[in-house]
Amino acid sequence: MDLDLMRELSVPTDSKIVLLVLDGLGGLPNDDGRTELEAANTPNFDRLAAGSDLGLNRPVAAGVSPGSGPGHLALFGYNPLKYEVGRGVLSALGVGVELGENDLAARINFATKDESGKISDRRAGRIPTEEAAKLVDLLNEKLHLDGAEVSVVHEKEHRAVAVFRAEGLSDALSDSDPQRTGLEPLRVKPTNGDGAAEKSAGLANAFVTKADEILADEHPANTVLLRGFGMHPALPRFEETYKLNAAAIATYPMYKGLARLAGMEVLREGGPDFAGELETLTRSWGSHDFFFVHVKATDAAGEDGDPKRKAAVVEEVDALLPDLLDLCPDALAVTGDHATPAKMKSHSWHGVPFLVHSPYTLPTADAFGERACAGGSLGVFPGEEIMGLLMGHALKLNRYGA
Amino acid sequence: MDLDLMRELSVPTDSKIVLLVLDGLGGLPNDDGRTELEAANTPNFDRLAAGSDLGLNRPVAAGVSPGSGPGHLALFGYNPLKYEVGRGVLSALGVGVELGENDLAARINFATKDESGKISDRRAGRIPTEEAAKLVDLLNEKLHLDGAEVSVVHEKEHRAVAVFRAEGLSDALSDSDPQRTGLEPLRVKPTNGDGAAEKSAGLANAFVTKADEILADEHPANTVLLRGFGMHPALPRFEETYKLNAAAIATYPMYKGLARLAGMEVLREGGPDFAGELETLTRSWGSHDFFFVHVKATDAAGEDGDPKRKAAVVEEVDALLPDLLDLCPDALAVTGDHATPAKMKSHSWHGVPFLVHSPYTLPTADAFGERACAGGSLGVFPGEEIMGLLMGHALKLNRYGA
Repeated sequence: MDLDLMRELSVPTDSKIVLLVLDGLGGLPNDDGRTELEAANTPNFDRLAAGSDLGLNRPVAAGVSPGSGPGHLALFGYNPLKYEVGRGVLSALGVGVELGENDLAARINFATKDESGKISDRRAGRIPTEEAAKLVDLLNEKLHLDGAEVSVVHEKEHRAVAVFRAEGLSDALSDSDPQRTGLEPLRVKPTNGDGAAEKSAGLANAFVTKADEILADEHPANTVLLRGFGMHPALPRFEETYKLNAAAIATYPMYKGLARLAGMEVLREGGPDFAGELETLTRSWGSHDFFFVHVKATDAAGEDGDPKRKAAVVEEVDALLPDLLDLCPDALAVTGDHATPAKMKSHSWHGVPFLVHSPYTLPTADAFGERACAGGSLGVFPGEEIMGLLMGHALKLNRYGA
Repeated sequence: MDLDLMRELSVPTDSKIVLLVLDGLGGLPNDDGRTELEAANTPNFDRLAAGSDLGLNRPVAAGVSPGSGPGHLALFGYNPLKYEVGRGVLSALGVGVELGENDLAARINFATKDESGKISDRRAGRIPTEEAAKLVDLLNEKLHLDGAEVSVVHEKEHRAVAVFRAEGLSDALSDSDPQRTGLEPLRVKPTNGDGAAEKSAGLANAFVTKADEILADEHPANTVLLRGFGMHPALPRFEETYKLNAAAIATYPMYKGLARLAGMEVLREGGPDFAGELETLTRSWGSHDFFFVHVKATDAAGEDGDPKRKAAVVEEVDALLPDLLDLCPDALAVTGDHATPAKMKSHSWHGVPFLVHSPYTLPTADAFGERACAGGSLGVFPGEEIMGLLMGHALKLNRYGA
């Protein structure tokens, strides 16, 4: 999306926008020839589609399967090839760390180093989560750096996140992870010549040295590898770009974090499922004019290769859709951040079903599904255009030119 | 459109192209569930569609409603976000001023200034057209500047256009319009450091000072506000880009002006309606190889929220289409510069029905309408690609690469 154009044309109005994201919504035909969405019994989505513009949203590029970060950046209007969010940042967001603008995040692997100093296991035998959590506590208790605060947050098994806090840090850093066993860990090096990168590399290397001392007698996790250094990306904020007072409703930390990066206010969720999210939406309806609502369970079912469960999640959302529609959003989009076809058990590059509903649509089908969307009036389009469409349908954009 | 590519590949041939633009052609379903174009009885367009490539043309960007300027620039192959035509230029074109390359145009509002020198009404009570016309005559008679010719052309009510003629002018100027009442008018300032902008600002401020003297005893229009300074944009010309000897047939000044900006020759229209335009086309058929034919009445009916009248205009054009086809254009495109759905009474961002007819098409429907085009072989595509399609269908482009 041309964010300068949005900045130029957008005007604050009373109209309200909802972007409902069913994570990993897109699918492929399963044994019965129907995708998860096509197989789901969705009378409410189908009725909505019959009054909507339909299309397929392509998050990143032809053939490219997006991670959750790029998928959501595209949904928020950011070109996911231009605006990158470092993996360290995504991991930090994923465990609920609120990253400040000076914070440097990196992914940690607990690993095993042999007597010669070479890495013999990059994942320390995937040590159990409880064991790793104790090591994280140990590091947080004993590991202190000169010139920066550092904290470690556990993710799962051998994975954790380190966050460095100080003025003048940089993420222009190479990894310490050698990527193969039988090699010594690498020194973290600045990848450009500026002082901030030099300082940050020093902190990262000091972190590894001290962690090695603290973990010396542990087995198998007697060292740490650092990779994916990242800082808070300078994303143009929703308020400034779209003049929107935006709110996010999500149950997983990473999606809350991504929304926060864009400048959205993260609302306390009402419950663990869509019903709870809908309560939050209803309660907050008066206080914001844009709502990003994130449903995670579709993706999880797709990743598990369970088309029935994925369809069931869609049906649960469908059953509550009338409550959402009762709020009378001026523009409502329903889509996913990427496809997660159950038959692939993974994210994929396929177009994601998309609908936008408003009084100003050209309906082409009376069902919400991949093939109905393929014939829609929006065609196949870049996911980053969704925000422009929503702004148009909510009548929040001035005319371009006379 | 990649104009460099067009320049590289285009070759002059005997084949002839017609670009028939029904202004604001695109629509949305009305009460009967059909768009204006779908509801219109168009046997000839439908037969043409059955031998054409179909698609939806998107003039500017997702969700963005184009003005007539950007909409036509796109139709002529110019990226409307790259090539901007200042509002002053469009206004000048709209009242039939032929802008030379040295001319600086600005929009004028007649306004009311109170005794303290503050603007109390930015539109002088929207004074009647006849009254304003007299003030325009007064200014043209009495207002003279050192170092430049200046002329004022009346638009409508409180609106007029000033055109400054001199060597070395620039449109890098701020407005004098303070945009709110209760404020003094602003001095026009150069927005860059070059001498041309400085000189132009001086002329603009002298214009306001002298106008204030001339209008001192008038009421309510005792001052003028200037805004939207613009100069003839440096558009690559049709002849050079496409090797086309291009002609324009239009009844409204702005469209003639836009065509002239692209280097087209504006033909004297044969009459006020499509029948008259068709006469001109027929008479000039031998002398040019590209014809832009503009029909305004579709847009006007859409703006008035009158779907029946809009459909009737389409039917009038349809009835005469056989005469156009009798000329045997090698490639014929029919589309609009943007949508003007009657139910919105305004320009909109929606895709515009498009067809291109030649011996080399892949027909997908036997009707010309929004939904037929949504399923077409061209999909949804940027309006600026239309010239490339026409050049291809007229066999005027060399192969790219061996």
